[in-house]
Amino acid sequence: MLPIAIDAMGGDHAPGAIVEGAHRAVAELGVPVVLVGRPEELADLRGDLDVVAASQVIGMDADPASSVRTMKDASLVRAAEAVRDGRASAMLSAGNTGATMASALLRMGRIKGVSRPAIATPIPVPGSTPTVLLDAGANAECQPAWLVQFALMGAVFARVRYGIDQPKVGLLSIGEEATKGSPLVKETHALLAEPGALDAAGARFVGNVEGRDIMTDAADVVVTDGFTGNVALKTLEGGMKVLVGSVLDALGATEVAGPAVEALMPLYATLDPDQTGGAMLLGVDGVCIISHGSSSSTAIVNATRVAHEMIEADLVERLRAAIATG
Amino acid sequence: MLPIAIDAMGGDHAPGAIVEGAHRAVAELGVPVVLVGRPEELADLRGDLDVVAASQVIGMDADPASSVRTMKDASLVRAAEAVRDGRASAMLSAGNTGATMASALLRMGRIKGVSRPAIATPIPVPGSTPTVLLDAGANAECQPAWLVQFALMGAVFARVRYGIDQPKVGLLSIGEEATKGSPLVKETHALLAEPGALDAAGARFVGNVEGRDIMTDAADVVVTDGFTGNVALKTLEGGMKVLVGSVLDALGATEVAGPAVEALMPLYATLDPDQTGGAMLLGVDGVCIISHGSSSSTAIVNATRVAHEMIEADLVERLRAAIATG
Repeated sequence: MLPIAIDAMGGDHAPGAIVEGAHRAVAELGVPVVLVGRPEELADLRGDLDVVAASQVIGMDADPASSVRTMKDASLVRAAEAVRDGRASAMLSAGNTGATMASALLRMGRIKGVSRPAIATPIPVPGSTPTVLLDAGANAECQPAWLVQFALMGAVFARVRYGIDQPKVGLLSIGEEATKGSPLVKETHALLAEPGALDAAGARFVGNVEGRDIMTDAADVVVTDGFTGNVALKTLEGGMKVLVGSVLDALGATEVAGPAVEALMPLYATLDPDQTGGAMLLGVDGVCIISHGSSSSTAIVNATRVAHEMIEADLVERLRAAIATG
Repeated sequence: MLPIAIDAMGGDHAPGAIVEGAHRAVAELGVPVVLVGRPEELADLRGDLDVVAASQVIGMDADPASSVRTMKDASLVRAAEAVRDGRASAMLSAGNTGATMASALLRMGRIKGVSRPAIATPIPVPGSTPTVLLDAGANAECQPAWLVQFALMGAVFARVRYGIDQPKVGLLSIGEEATKGSPLVKETHALLAEPGALDAAGARFVGNVEGRDIMTDAADVVVTDGFTGNVALKTLEGGMKVLVGSVLDALGATEVAGPAVEALMPLYATLDPDQTGGAMLLGVDGVCIISHGSSSSTAIVNATRVAHEMIEADLVERLRAAIATG
């Protein structure tokens, strides 16, 4: 089994938490991994893990396109090359999101027929399977045909990742009626409403959905452009953070803080981004997982588990088939 | 003092909760109101309140433009006419949002120089003043110059409504850098970054903000197009509802449910949309408050209070001055 290439240098807590996560993934999951990064910085941390040497690190706030173009020995770039060259089965990074996308796109290439890769982010739904939101930020401007491909890819991912038999695909808009929304939404609606539009992914179109539906069972996959998707994702993350913090503050001041907070732990775990396994870049010719910048070692373990599952389930081949047919 | 015209027929709980709210507003605030709607349906509810007769009701899901065009005796239309004709000081409705906008726009007209009115919605920020989000849904497609006007109007509103001395205005995008976002965002950023761009509203531009900043103090006013704004608003509302419900479920099953839920009540009150006083349609030549469809009588009391405050503070004249100078 090929190892999963983990960018040891990317993320707010790199390399410490990342390498710790890599060790834990090997121990807890029995999945082989290889670290990618500066050997000298990893010497004391790597233990018996292999290292793909990369002398450069793309900063969290660096410009993605120019960084990937000029830093050919960056850990992200080398991780993507390891997948391309058949030395790794997947790549995983908690580093610069744009640079991760650019590295994957430039080194692995696209699946044939894919216009644009998209970031698929699982949004937790208490008591149910997560909703797959895409594009969560790869493409600020989109065309209707790209959104149809996002729908197909998101549906394949929802099937493979969450075992949903016939995923419900919704189009994010500002009203349920087909006449509501931007020109992009209206044109995409017409394409998705054509009979059999999502047959290649074994999915069905349930029409427009609204922001309030994302955290519910109304749809398994919510399709939108990368600008709107990123705003929705960040808005939800920000709101959850503020609300969870406020709830804990309010309860912490009471005599029943202990049992009350304990009762909320399962919910908290459901919402914890470290538990989702990260976002996936769908449409590139390989498995690429984009983890949160704030990833802990637990987030890396979960992301490694998801990467492994997606490889075992042959996600990329299934995406290829859906795009070829769709 | 002119009365505030309350659309008695609009909203999920109309006319009962609306009329109850109107009675409470008179009793609790000492503000005069007039009901607008079908006299026969209001006969048993009106008590000593005056009624402006309107024989038609625009349904919550009716097409706004055609409804307002064809139903000239609709309660929403008559409410807007009452303001236009100097028989009421403001209008307030929990009915069809699009039809409320269309009625206000067609009957009251725009403030001179305003390209498009925008919906300004206060988003609660625990421990601080709300963030004013606009446009929250009036204009699915926007031009950069309109967004600059939204910034000016939102800043004036934040000053008048929340007493913020020099409001911080942020532009909603998917990264803090000026180069991030859609073409609309980039062009608007350039206009807002010009020295003195928001002087007419006594405000300052703080650059791009992200969805995660909406529920924080990062900005007092967040400007965006009506599509993105509506998605962000609904996403936040939906997320809050799911999370609050999940928290109450989890705590309700414990022995400490009583004191724990009690400790959360102040937070719950902060987030309760019935407490915000509703959204405002800024840019029309009169005060127009758009309340939530699910408004209770308490929501109507709060909306009436806000309408009264905005009239006393001469909001429309201040908006006029800012647009004329800006």
